[in-house]
Amino acid sequence: MYANGVRHFIETNDFTKQEILDIAYLSLEIKNCIKNGYNPPLLKGKTLGMIFQQGSTRTRVSFETAMEQLGGHAQYLGPGMIQLGGHETIGDTGKVLSQLIDVVMARVIDHQTVVDLANACSIPVLNGMSDWNHPTQEIGDLCTILENLPRGKKLEDCKVVFAGDGTQVCASLGMLCTKLGMSFVQYGPKGKWVQDALKIANDKRPDVTYGDYIKIMEENCKESGGSFLITDDRNAVKGADFIYTDVWYGLYESELSEEERIATFKDYQVNRELMQIANLGCKFMHCLPATRGEDVTDEVADSDVSLCWEEAGNRLTAMRGLLVYLTQYQRAAEPSELQKEAAKESLEKFMAERNII
Amino acid sequence: MYANGVRHFIETNDFTKQEILDIAYLSLEIKNCIKNGYNPPLLKGKTLGMIFQQGSTRTRVSFETAMEQLGGHAQYLGPGMIQLGGHETIGDTGKVLSQLIDVVMARVIDHQTVVDLANACSIPVLNGMSDWNHPTQEIGDLCTILENLPRGKKLEDCKVVFAGDGTQVCASLGMLCTKLGMSFVQYGPKGKWVQDALKIANDKRPDVTYGDYIKIMEENCKESGGSFLITDDRNAVKGADFIYTDVWYGLYESELSEEERIATFKDYQVNRELMQIANLGCKFMHCLPATRGEDVTDEVADSDVSLCWEEAGNRLTAMRGLLVYLTQYQRAAEPSELQKEAAKESLEKFMAERNII
Amino acid sequence: MYANGVRHFIETNDFTKQEILDIAYLSLEIKNCIKNGYNPPLLKGKTLGMIFQQGSTRTRVSFETAMEQLGGHAQYLGPGMIQLGGHETIGDTGKVLSQLIDVVMARVIDHQTVVDLANACSIPVLNGMSDWNHPTQEIGDLCTILENLPRGKKLEDCKVVFAGDGTQVCASLGMLCTKLGMSFVQYGPKGKWVQDALKIANDKRPDVTYGDYIKIMEENCKESGGSFLITDDRNAVKGADFIYTDVWYGLYESELSEEERIATFKDYQVNRELMQIANLGCKFMHCLPATRGEDVTDEVADSDVSLCWEEAGNRLTAMRGLLVYLTQYQRAAEPSELQKEAAKESLEKFMAERNII
Repeated sequence: MYANGVRHFIETNDFTKQEILDIAYLSLEIKNCIKNGYNPPLLKGKTLGMIFQQGSTRTRVSFETAMEQLGGHAQYLGPGMIQLGGHETIGDTGKVLSQLIDVVMARVIDHQTVVDLANACSIPVLNGMSDWNHPTQEIGDLCTILENLPRGKKLEDCKVVFAGDGTQVCASLGMLCTKLGMSFVQYGPKGKWVQDALKIANDKRPDVTYGDYIKIMEENCKESGGSFLITDDRNAVKGADFIYTDVWYGLYESELSEEERIATFKDYQVNRELMQIANLGCKFMHCLPATRGEDVTDEVADSDVSLCWEEAGNRLTAMRGLLVYLTQYQRAAEPSELQKEAAKESLEKFMAERNII
Repeated sequence: MYANGVRHFIETNDFTKQEILDIAYLSLEIKNCIKNGYNPPLLKGKTLGMIFQQGSTRTRVSFETAMEQLGGHAQYLGPGMIQLGGHETIGDTGKVLSQLIDVVMARVIDHQTVVDLANACSIPVLNGMSDWNHPTQEIGDLCTILENLPRGKKLEDCKVVFAGDGTQVCASLGMLCTKLGMSFVQYGPKGKWVQDALKIANDKRPDVTYGDYIKIMEENCKESGGSFLITDDRNAVKGADFIYTDVWYGLYESELSEEERIATFKDYQVNRELMQIANLGCKFMHCLPATRGEDVTDEVADSDVSLCWEEAGNRLTAMRGLLVYLTQYQRAAEPSELQKEAAKESLEKFMAERNII
Repeated sequence: MYANGVRHFIETNDFTKQEILDIAYLSLEIKNCIKNGYNPPLLKGKTLGMIFQQGSTRTRVSFETAMEQLGGHAQYLGPGMIQLGGHETIGDTGKVLSQLIDVVMARVIDHQTVVDLANACSIPVLNGMSDWNHPTQEIGDLCTILENLPRGKKLEDCKVVFAGDGTQVCASLGMLCTKLGMSFVQYGPKGKWVQDALKIANDKRPDVTYGDYIKIMEENCKESGGSFLITDDRNAVKGADFIYTDVWYGLYESELSEEERIATFKDYQVNRELMQIANLGCKFMHCLPATRGEDVTDEVADSDVSLCWEEAGNRLTAMRGLLVYLTQYQRAAEPSELQKEAAKESLEKFMAERNII
């Protein structure tokens, strides 16, 4: 909860386990509806503003499709299209948008930007990825995991191994798994562990502290009964039900050349050998885009155990559930039929009097 | 009125006082409907093309939301997305758009561009701001003034003081107030008076004459009983019911550095001292974005007398009213139910015969 | 037909004469419906992704308007907004988009890009122009020709002369006319004949062969009874029912200066003299944008025999027909009312249980 009593979606860790599960199951119910030809008009007349400080395929397309399928509309506010922290403070832009639309999403370069926006807005703000986390990806991934639970296992029994670079997707996955009582491992090289990556992001803004990532994970596990491990020991992959990876250039594209990143991460590629260390039936996950031949081989990405295309589809699943969940308070405040009729009558009378058609 | 019998919205001065009031009250009636849960489908099936030669937050977001709320759709045609005066003449683009959409808005760098577009289009064209004026802002501001009239005063009794740089927003506000019979003052430094600013804009296009701004104001006052004054005398602020301002970099960003603009305008900042010269209960207005600490202090902008966030919301109010008003002739020409049924039957027969689903 | 059993629209030559006519007549039936106030909701709930590697006026605006008028929505995915062949392979982007939207169009620089996209997508892909052809333009032009057949003539009796540079529009027009059994002429200077232009486009990609354009035309004629001629002989214009042209800078903007292109093409301008060689009542066509004074004179473009504005309007006509035609298989697979009801009930039960509004 941020200012104004409105619920924002800045990180999943702001929500309880039950709330996260509610959002995921709501997402799956709506998915079922749409698959069966019923588009529930839960966002009818609503407008989403989509602020992008960077390009995006999945986040952008899935948010826009979600709004339209549920009766609303999404506005694309791309780089340079609106002022955000240029001629106008983020706070003022937030106040203005709160007058003109119903909900906002922002993909930002610095996490602080989406936090500032949420603090200024009196409408819900969703984090569409920052350098700290990627929480809409988490909800989609949770939907994918729930749809692909290993035979006979509950969610809490599952082990998720993230192989490779400690990106913000890795950070988010860890927060989700530990919050839900699952077992989480980052298997990656020293120096590229998730807490190091987040430290680099934080050090750009010495005035901001996002809390100790390790401490968040520990508290989550204490509450939920989950576990986590960050290691370069290949043995930690054993018992994995899901192996997840992300690109190796992460947020550091300007820092690591292709040669450097291959030298750093080559032992952490998701390939047939790595998959075979895990449980039989272990599934492969990837937030995409993938750099085929680097973070994952074609063989794995295109295999029957690859869930990465389903995950892309479940970005849309998640966006629908999140948008419906966060706009509940707006539907709760809907005027009565009598109020609607009175307003309609007043408009029609005015237009007739002034001879306006 | 321009070519083809269609009504464009290029400047408020093309409309009578009664027409301007009709548009504002229509806007407020539709606002009341939407607040009460009834979205009148007056733009159902209509498409607005939004041409932007520059970035924009308020104009863009409010036009797009307006179309969607009333059942239509807005297309964002940003810089570089379409040809406008490049490979294709403005006239040809106007003719083409008239075939493909129902209404157009354009935010242009040179006023002549939107005039040329209107002359070419057989559908309504709205000026979304030029270097000469900003008429949709005016309608929104009129809505805000009507909703916040000083106790016991009629619109015609009100005094509006614009403090600072003679921007196109200042020009528009002056045209609106004098047309409606109000009292208007620009309180600004010599050399930055509104007629000078418009002269600079005009001098870029020696082939174009927009008329003498002062003469327009005089004629408006003669007709309406209003008054206007352009001065650097601080006493002119006395009796103000509304104090309005705009940024100081205006259209001259490349010309005035921060130091220069503060040196030029610092005595014209809207702050506690200036507000206290005006009437008790005087309200603050700003078209936004504001440069806090320059054109207005935080204290004033965030105070209870600040209407600037309501004004932002009333951009949306105005866009809805304007779009409904200007597309009247299209609704008047709607085919009968019988014609609809006949066309539907013909399509269904054709599809059945050709086995198309 | 490409992979996955889905029908793409990459070139008209993939379709039979009957199919092309079905699409055109379907387009005209839907046009009639909309003109008569009935917007058939054949794309309700559907989302089109519009990928543009270049700017576009007609293709972009007409696709977006078409989707909205028929109950769907179009997403503008402009240059730099999404990854396409950058961080992500075209194949992967195609697979992802197939999860998130219902149909895709792409305006590409290299024809191979739209072919690769179609091969990856399990949803229909439409070619919104490439350096090889412009098939949506063809369908619009066919609609325009059908609406303006010379008195007493059948389509197959008509002669179409394309004057000027052998652009991809010229190539497409030739494929269409010969497929339909019409008589087609390119009247242009040696070295700028359509097969040369396509050869230049192909030579950029020595790994790709698009087939011999002349061979395609010959086969079309053998099947249809049509004819074609590519020549610099002005006598070939005789008997023309339609004279068509395109800009002279074509795909070669960086290669030919204004002086060079005028030197090359000046004898091929469509002017009063050229029109007078053709049949009495010969109509003028242009895909637009036009470079007035180069490829066509004002006198011809703005005359009563000019169909170019109707053609622009029929881009929209064609887009509607094409989108409806290609999404047939989706409507055929619509769930039953009972399935819809069951899914709706399940969602409502879930939301009530979890206290979600």
